[in-house]
Amino acid sequence: MTGPLRIPLGQSVLAKNDAAAARTRGRLAELGLPCVNLMGSPGCGKTALLEATLDALAGELRVGVVTGDLATARDADRLRDRAAVVTQINTGGGCHLDAAQVAGGLAGFPLEDLDLVVVENVGNLICPATFDLGEARKVVVFSTPEGQDKPAKHPSALLAADLVLLNKVDLLPYLPFDVAAFRADVALVRADLDVLEVAATRKDDDPLLGPWLTWLRGLVTR
Amino acid sequence: MTGPLRIPLGQSVLAKNDAAAARTRGRLAELGLPCVNLMGSPGCGKTALLEATLDALAGELRVGVVTGDLATARDADRLRDRAAVVTQINTGGGCHLDAAQVAGGLAGFPLEDLDLVVVENVGNLICPATFDLGEARKVVVFSTPEGQDKPAKHPSALLAADLVLLNKVDLLPYLPFDVAAFRADVALVRADLDVLEVAATRKDDDPLLGPWLTWLRGLVTR
Repeated sequence: MTGPLRIPLGQSVLAKNDAAAARTRGRLAELGLPCVNLMGSPGCGKTALLEATLDALAGELRVGVVTGDLATARDADRLRDRAAVVTQINTGGGCHLDAAQVAGGLAGFPLEDLDLVVVENVGNLICPATFDLGEARKVVVFSTPEGQDKPAKHPSALLAADLVLLNKVDLLPYLPFDVAAFRADVALVRADLDVLEVAATRKDDDPLLGPWLTWLRGLVTR
Repeated sequence: MTGPLRIPLGQSVLAKNDAAAARTRGRLAELGLPCVNLMGSPGCGKTALLEATLDALAGELRVGVVTGDLATARDADRLRDRAAVVTQINTGGGCHLDAAQVAGGLAGFPLEDLDLVVVENVGNLICPATFDLGEARKVVVFSTPEGQDKPAKHPSALLAADLVLLNKVDLLPYLPFDVAAFRADVALVRADLDVLEVAATRKDDDPLLGPWLTWLRGLVTR
């Protein structure tokens, strides 16, 4: 369902990125340190999910976070008190994080002291899927207000993914959104992908993080 | 607040695009036919806004729609019975529409018989802002579930915009979203930009399309 990118990235750009990603992957493998690349649209709730996840894992796992945005340090500011270490990368006009940027972010981290690294990519459901960052797993976050028809309209993200999260299921009573139709749409592209439902900002009821936390814990080797 | 794109697009790519856009702009100007480029995140409600807009303008304006997505013909299917003419462009993995694609779409339209053309760009708050399509106006659509902090995190879209729409204001009772804070965030990037609030899918109450329809009518010269 995918075709060539309309932007001619050039083999040299991707080859250079892949080389940097391979160096990062090698270094993290040596350390036994898993890295998750979190991708999704602007406003799907990546930062809120990280806030809730870090709160739930407090005292259990030491997590380093690299967070990307075109501009502002807002996401890092929200995560600073929750993560073991955080760095914000501003891409300027750039539509994704690249491997060199992530390597630069990780260079300032005490990697030996961490259990898990999460990269929160730039809010964009398309371009980040093309750029290997040296991560162990790619997770794509959708949210219910975006509509149940988005998976098959964005096959490139799903083709690269290891897991799908459907966030903001607490808004389902107010939205014309059919979870079964969403799951069927994911399966049109990748029938093998697990979809976990979460409600990251729900404070007065269960935010449904259990299966997601179990999945993350399964990556940790230390 | 913006910087250079991390993807080295190359002057040749943008120059070729700009040349195609200039040809489209010249042709539309000859015909006195306004063209609006609608940009925003996946799921911000661009297609729903077009559905409601076309319903409101039925019998008044003849509108042609070029709609872009990576894959599927879903948006064109939703708009087919409402617009005078619709064409769907699938970009494959491509993260934006380019001027040649739009020119190709318009080539099949009876332009002399239309009052307005709307291009619904690929769902992406970043890359489409860089590509001139030959349009008269760029409109950026945000939606309340995305969060009030998105404008200053996406300055490139706002720097290119002529108007901002804030969609899904009917969901405000269920969201931690402060409209005044959102407007202040837009003003951080572009204090001169108008922000119109809409609720495109609201059927039992006012969808608040009035000012938006007035803005569109103001572009029409026939």
